[in-house]
Amino acid sequence: MAKQFKIIGLFGKYKDPSVGNVINELTRFLQGRACKVLLGETTAAEIAEPLAESRPDAEIGKEIDLAVVVGGDGTMLNVARSLAEYEVPLLGVNLGRLGFLTDISADDMTDAIGKILDGDYQAEERLLLYAEIIRDGKIVHNSNAFNDVIINKRGLSRLIELETYLDGEFVNNMHADGIIAATPTGSTAYALSAGGPILHPTLPAIVLVPICPHTLSDRPLVFSSDRVIEVIITGRHEQAAHVTFDGQTVYTLQNNDRIRVRRAETPVHLIHPSNRNHYEVLRAKLHWGEKL
Amino acid sequence: MAKQFKIIGLFGKYKDPSVGNVINELTRFLQGRACKVLLGETTAAEIAEPLAESRPDAEIGKEIDLAVVVGGDGTMLNVARSLAEYEVPLLGVNLGRLGFLTDISADDMTDAIGKILDGDYQAEERLLLYAEIIRDGKIVHNSNAFNDVIINKRGLSRLIELETYLDGEFVNNMHADGIIAATPTGSTAYALSAGGPILHPTLPAIVLVPICPHTLSDRPLVFSSDRVIEVIITGRHEQAAHVTFDGQTVYTLQNNDRIRVRRAETPVHLIHPSNRNHYEVLRAKLHWGEKL
Amino acid sequence: MAKQFKIIGLFGKYKDPSVGNVINELTRFLQGRACKVLLGETTAAEIAEPLAESRPDAEIGKEIDLAVVVGGDGTMLNVARSLAEYEVPLLGVNLGRLGFLTDISADDMTDAIGKILDGDYQAEERLLLYAEIIRDGKIVHNSNAFNDVIINKRGLSRLIELETYLDGEFVNNMHADGIIAATPTGSTAYALSAGGPILHPTLPAIVLVPICPHTLSDRPLVFSSDRVIEVIITGRHEQAAHVTFDGQTVYTLQNNDRIRVRRAETPVHLIHPSNRNHYEVLRAKLHWGEKL
Amino acid sequence: MAKQFKIIGLFGKYKDPSVGNVINELTRFLQGRACKVLLGETTAAEIAEPLAESRPDAEIGKEIDLAVVVGGDGTMLNVARSLAEYEVPLLGVNLGRLGFLTDISADDMTDAIGKILDGDYQAEERLLLYAEIIRDGKIVHNSNAFNDVIINKRGLSRLIELETYLDGEFVNNMHADGIIAATPTGSTAYALSAGGPILHPTLPAIVLVPICPHTLSDRPLVFSSDRVIEVIITGRHEQAAHVTFDGQTVYTLQNNDRIRVRRAETPVHLIHPSNRNHYEVLRAKLHWGEKL
Repeated sequence: MAKQFKIIGLFGKYKDPSVGNVINELTRFLQGRACKVLLGETTAAEIAEPLAESRPDAEIGKEIDLAVVVGGDGTMLNVARSLAEYEVPLLGVNLGRLGFLTDISADDMTDAIGKILDGDYQAEERLLLYAEIIRDGKIVHNSNAFNDVIINKRGLSRLIELETYLDGEFVNNMHADGIIAATPTGSTAYALSAGGPILHPTLPAIVLVPICPHTLSDRPLVFSSDRVIEVIITGRHEQAAHVTFDGQTVYTLQNNDRIRVRRAETPVHLIHPSNRNHYEVLRAKLHWGEKL
Repeated sequence: MAKQFKIIGLFGKYKDPSVGNVINELTRFLQGRACKVLLGETTAAEIAEPLAESRPDAEIGKEIDLAVVVGGDGTMLNVARSLAEYEVPLLGVNLGRLGFLTDISADDMTDAIGKILDGDYQAEERLLLYAEIIRDGKIVHNSNAFNDVIINKRGLSRLIELETYLDGEFVNNMHADGIIAATPTGSTAYALSAGGPILHPTLPAIVLVPICPHTLSDRPLVFSSDRVIEVIITGRHEQAAHVTFDGQTVYTLQNNDRIRVRRAETPVHLIHPSNRNHYEVLRAKLHWGEKL
Repeated sequence: MAKQFKIIGLFGKYKDPSVGNVINELTRFLQGRACKVLLGETTAAEIAEPLAESRPDAEIGKEIDLAVVVGGDGTMLNVARSLAEYEVPLLGVNLGRLGFLTDISADDMTDAIGKILDGDYQAEERLLLYAEIIRDGKIVHNSNAFNDVIINKRGLSRLIELETYLDGEFVNNMHADGIIAATPTGSTAYALSAGGPILHPTLPAIVLVPICPHTLSDRPLVFSSDRVIEVIITGRHEQAAHVTFDGQTVYTLQNNDRIRVRRAETPVHLIHPSNRNHYEVLRAKLHWGEKL
Repeated sequence: MAKQFKIIGLFGKYKDPSVGNVINELTRFLQGRACKVLLGETTAAEIAEPLAESRPDAEIGKEIDLAVVVGGDGTMLNVARSLAEYEVPLLGVNLGRLGFLTDISADDMTDAIGKILDGDYQAEERLLLYAEIIRDGKIVHNSNAFNDVIINKRGLSRLIELETYLDGEFVNNMHADGIIAATPTGSTAYALSAGGPILHPTLPAIVLVPICPHTLSDRPLVFSSDRVIEVIITGRHEQAAHVTFDGQTVYTLQNNDRIRVRRAETPVHLIHPSNRNHYEVLRAKLHWGEKL
């Protein structure tokens, strides 16, 4: 049975002037529906006259039972990572073009969210990744990623050298611009531009996509999300690589750093309108069915 | 605990003159190890002086508890389909170059098979596909496929038009040379040439790879092997397409034919030497780690 | 200085019922502009009441100084090959969607063609290919091709084996579905679906694109149209391949056949409206500038 | 008729300890053949006991009539750019693996160079690019490039936005990791990893290859080297991109910078042994003809 949402957190796209009005309109609508509304602190700070209390971003997850995110897919990625441990379901409202994650248009958001409050929705679990950077045997950094963990050359590097392992078994070494470990969600983002396949959103799998590999037979690899990937930076140049999480946060790598990626302990919970159709979104965004 | 193999079927590559000696050498070796040996009838018919009884190809699966296949990956595909319902494990001996499925070199086959008889081996389950062709509501043809179900233009057709559905939901329509539904095993065969990713052998997934699609954003799709794919031929030209199973058997399609592909009821059981390493095979065959 | 067009041949898409009215409207318009109009015989035969004389398709090129083609790119390819030796300029009127070769919409064709008769147009020379099939030292077939010469597997063949030579020098051998030799014009057609680059329409070059090659490093090759390509079919299977010219005419190949492709003696002359922009066509047809 | 080489400049790979002995051996050999030998200053500075005079790298081109480069393709690129204006022919000696540009193995270099001094060689002209960075209407940087001019995201940029023009005509805008303008020589380097075609070494053409473009139909474009490309950085983020020349020198870009690329005034002149075969090099380096 559909869960009832009572305490709802609102989150807006960072530094977007159009967010304030949408958040306030949503606040009024949700309060009118007898929901308690809380604002993420960062979001509240950008609204001239917020209509609800705010909570620190790191703590709001404890209280809310639904997060409504106003912005684009990037904002969804950010909120998804920050609420991951609380397993709060997320609902996305796009401010402009339809996103892969932001299903609801701001234009008819009250209708759409009204139905969701009535229990008329689809809930979906999506794979979240957890990555650790290991240096000299110690974990020096860690992060979740909802789309992808991207290891990329930096600075003037022409390319980087790396070795890949799956569950401790050597897969191959590679000279490339970098490598992407993507979730099914991330398979339609950067991984697609780099030549990766499209994974069904709920397939329990990870795809490893080389970026401009020197060896032309280095192809995307798809494997179970039960497995643990390790990538070791083996080049001779110092600080030639960095790792980014969802393209949003970054950490500079050193030679011999080991990036270990596995499934996070919790998935991301998405809420979609009940009429939302995954392939329809793909067809619209990829111009499928259209011919040359 | 490792299973003991007692009654062993031998199968050779069709029309290959070097098969006879290898089969006879294997027969002697296995009989010396107190195994009962049976030959597939087609194989027996090509050997001048077979050293063991033969059984009809359609029935041998009832009696044997291991099939040893001498040839290349193509022979393995063929035997795998024909024994599928009996779930007989298969072991491959290659006559020349290492195959993805034929792990054991004919040169040291007695050593390698000796260890396997001792119980020193890896057993692996691989996805098998089952496809039905539906015309005017009736199933007019069906077949298993271990590598792939390939729908391809035929004759002078420039391209074919088709629609794809997943679990009954419309995915897209496509103008292309064809489309491939491949198992993880088949992902390193034709699907790779057509631009598909490499699926880990035991990932419970199917990849759908368009062949030279007109729309450049038609990309490979990977989804759970629990799902059912349907492809409908929608073009205007008669008999413009055919479907092949593992590239070995073929059926001519008509417009409005529906090709339904799902997981077969039984998997294929492979037996590998215990020191066999999947990535080592990939590295050797794809020249991985070698640089421009 | 722009050439004046006086005797104009009209050609329509084969078996398209909408062609007749457009051809008749064009005939009246051109006669009103004091041009003599001649119809290709095949076209005339499909029009209920043609308004102009017709000429055999093989001879009409001697008389006309402009060919107006009503249809799609396929009709243009066909007329271009058939008029090649006469170097008659071609102008394309599309009946539906914009084509790469048919610039003018039927909706405003009289305006557009009026300006062209006034001398307000762009003339462009495009590379035409000439191919010969050589068997046992004799030329057994030959044809021009405006888009491409396509060597493709046929029947049940899984793939074909071929060797490629450039100016007599061995380039490589290949296992593939086939290979395409495309002109710049053809580089946006089938060659693009097979992974080829887009050549500028007037670049004097040919691109050789493998179709689903077994070896992943077999990539498209671009070379001067001064060079002569030879492809030899080297497989063991009989009649496993055929060659098609612009995807419109076909010839069945035998093993050891040699397909020799070079620049035809004459180019194709295209007439475009003076405001026609090549990149605008590409942007429209390839959805360039549109983002995911 | 073959030119006689009398004054020969020697250049070695930077910071490679094995270079000194090879340069000294070459010096003795050439002096024994009555040639005058001059060393590039940077090279001379790294040799313990150089056996010939040195000249400043910026001036040596005035005196020598052949440059022998000991190292890999990277060293060749560097010397080619630095000697470009003098049109000194270059000959490459590789220290390890065969290069695309370094044809002669150090092991048999005296034999091979002896023949070249005898006049037994092939001379080849290769396209060189010239790029200017234009900011606020002024040229703020310029460089030659023998392989490629690469515009790439830098720092934490997820991707860059750019507009492309050919001879002043708008081609398209793009969201991508970057874009490569490559010569035929560069078409087998980074451009190949990014999905570009292989251009014949002497084709007078440039290929523009997008790097991981957001729009999947953004494909490599090939056009005459007579044309002028302009790329404008249009993104909102400051200093999000840089341009590198042959992957060796770099310049940081600002928004609205215009990178103009055209053919340099002089080509690069390469000297090859007379038995050198371009396709043989490609086959060796790309594992062509080898099958899965």
